[in-house]
Amino acid sequence: MTFADTARLDDPKDEATAFAADRPLTLDSGATLDGLRLAYKTYGTLNAARSNAILICHALSLDQYVASSHPVSGRPAWWRTMVGPGLPMDPARHFIICSNVVGGCMGSTGPSSINPATGRPWGLAFPVITIADMVRAQAMLVQSLGIDKLFAVVGGSMGGMQVLQWASDYPEMLFSAVCIAAAPRHSAQNIAFHEVGRQAIMADPDWRGGDYANEGVRPEKGLAVARMAAHITYLSEPALHRKFGRELQSDGLSWGFDADFQVESYLRHQGASFVDRFDANSYLYITRAMDYFDLAANHGGVLADAFRAARDVRFCVFSFTSDWLYPTVESRSVVRALNAAGSRASFVEIDSDKGHDAFLLDEPVLRSALGGFMSSAAQIRGLP
Amino acid sequence: MTFADTARLDDPKDEATAFAADRPLTLDSGATLDGLRLAYKTYGTLNAARSNAILICHALSLDQYVASSHPVSGRPAWWRTMVGPGLPMDPARHFIICSNVVGGCMGSTGPSSINPATGRPWGLAFPVITIADMVRAQAMLVQSLGIDKLFAVVGGSMGGMQVLQWASDYPEMLFSAVCIAAAPRHSAQNIAFHEVGRQAIMADPDWRGGDYANEGVRPEKGLAVARMAAHITYLSEPALHRKFGRELQSDGLSWGFDADFQVESYLRHQGASFVDRFDANSYLYITRAMDYFDLAANHGGVLADAFRAARDVRFCVFSFTSDWLYPTVESRSVVRALNAAGSRASFVEIDSDKGHDAFLLDEPVLRSALGGFMSSAAQIRGLP
Repeated sequence: MTFADTARLDDPKDEATAFAADRPLTLDSGATLDGLRLAYKTYGTLNAARSNAILICHALSLDQYVASSHPVSGRPAWWRTMVGPGLPMDPARHFIICSNVVGGCMGSTGPSSINPATGRPWGLAFPVITIADMVRAQAMLVQSLGIDKLFAVVGGSMGGMQVLQWASDYPEMLFSAVCIAAAPRHSAQNIAFHEVGRQAIMADPDWRGGDYANEGVRPEKGLAVARMAAHITYLSEPALHRKFGRELQSDGLSWGFDADFQVESYLRHQGASFVDRFDANSYLYITRAMDYFDLAANHGGVLADAFRAARDVRFCVFSFTSDWLYPTVESRSVVRALNAAGSRASFVEIDSDKGHDAFLLDEPVLRSALGGFMSSAAQIRGLP
Repeated sequence: MTFADTARLDDPKDEATAFAADRPLTLDSGATLDGLRLAYKTYGTLNAARSNAILICHALSLDQYVASSHPVSGRPAWWRTMVGPGLPMDPARHFIICSNVVGGCMGSTGPSSINPATGRPWGLAFPVITIADMVRAQAMLVQSLGIDKLFAVVGGSMGGMQVLQWASDYPEMLFSAVCIAAAPRHSAQNIAFHEVGRQAIMADPDWRGGDYANEGVRPEKGLAVARMAAHITYLSEPALHRKFGRELQSDGLSWGFDADFQVESYLRHQGASFVDRFDANSYLYITRAMDYFDLAANHGGVLADAFRAARDVRFCVFSFTSDWLYPTVESRSVVRALNAAGSRASFVEIDSDKGHDAFLLDEPVLRSALGGFMSSAAQIRGLP
């Protein structure tokens, strides 16, 4: 099964709903994007007061399939530990929306979409997008659904960056906001890891200067290497040690370059399975958007000023002790800025040795703390 | 200037001396290597008692040019902060030896050498080698120089692994041993990063299944990506932040995929310059040797048992607080094992935010502590 066969919006196997914008999307770069489409999924029912909507923002390598299985890979719902019956985000109580980001490859407009000017895939002619552009597109979607104020916007990792951008750009549309394992800007080390991934993709001769879709090939090897490098950063050293240690695949060393160690085989699998469900150019564009992210930069370097208008939004910020990609110190800087801006912010640092990916895993403390925050917010909002 | 033009032993521009073994090298894999040659450099003069020799073991990407400039890249001596007049290792007092490891590409027998069986470069037909194989070859070189006991064996990173292996396999040939920023085995995370690098090389179509030297090409892009990924692990996040932060190359964002951030440009340069002086297959073989390294494994999992015969060797072990590649906990496990084996071990954890590469940089505390250790050992050894 190849990506091109199954992943586009017009494929009947893809059950995503599509939002078609009635006006161009203005981008931070100064460009405008005509014919914006966002593929999204919803779960639950919008109440009569339109006050129970939750927007979930997804991370770099994820998509709108937050609570249902992935149509290409068959992967189970990516946030099944947090979204579902009896969980903090519950379709029985909430109207849950999750859209594929602009620049993505699961049905939303991105570099593998058709460029109306040429009738062929955009490739590198697609404009560079930012986290703010992703959020601007999401706001159009939310408004099109008749929702003036979201009960909550929630996201981890790049999703958490979008949450912070929402609070900065559309505070009047938020009742509460949950930012998990994220940062208010990308660090030099974050940028460095992304640059390795981009160079791996661009080094693949099948990338063809970004024009691979027009030439019927795909830079699978480069994208797999990019994913492998990134994947290491999602796990902690203790988690890797506990999971794999120096365990071998078979009885002895191969004395060659096959995957001797289980961790090698695991990484190769991560790389190989990623290329079935992700597009290399989308990887370039989305990592670029993350690298460009620096919320304070548009406010004279003062992060608190980004949150000045968000005083009435209830915030909850989470970090994990073993997350070295977006360490606790980054979340603390967000909380400090929220406090300085006069916002109500809860902060929970969760003791976990699972690394950055902890937000996607079965972390009972995250579930109960997030559940508590959502229940308390629901009470104030008058939701059941 | 290309690698093939300048870096081989028979090139007149390479001033390295060569040791040609008079017997085959028996390898851990069970294979034997005929016609072993080790390229090496010496500095200073062996005294009449042959008691002032120091063997320096180099790290993955380095070579024998410990105290003189690199003949291919022109890079200054790689350990000019530690080897030289008035420094802890001083050619006026010591006879300093540094040899390119077996498997390397700066003149020692490795995968780019000529396979005597075919008359063409070995490529992947070269046998997989280990840290112990590197040390076994070094011991032959040291013996050939008429040295029964080294005053010291010294190394950082992979060089430190060789030091530990020396203490395990040839303790009677050592008076003292200095292990800097190393570990007694490769962790799952260490292996994972190396595997990313190997996959990047092997994904490059110019790698040609390892046979590129016979086909007149070189997998430069893959090797550059491997180097970029590895280089991030050599630096700490604070060092990257201090050095680059989010500083741009020019006045504004490019809104494209050029190197916008200084850290991107720095990494690209690291990748591009590495391919001028290193061979891709050597990178595969040497990283494999490091991944296979697990000193306790041959001693029933008890690290102390590797050092039982090294009771008379004076050890000094160094780590750096911000080294996340070989963190202090690894050095501590070495010191604990040395203590359990009844050896004299000093341990110095140096407070530095420069990461793993601190051992190569101007670290005054390392210099003074190493200088003190060497002076004290010299006194006991009866050296000036």
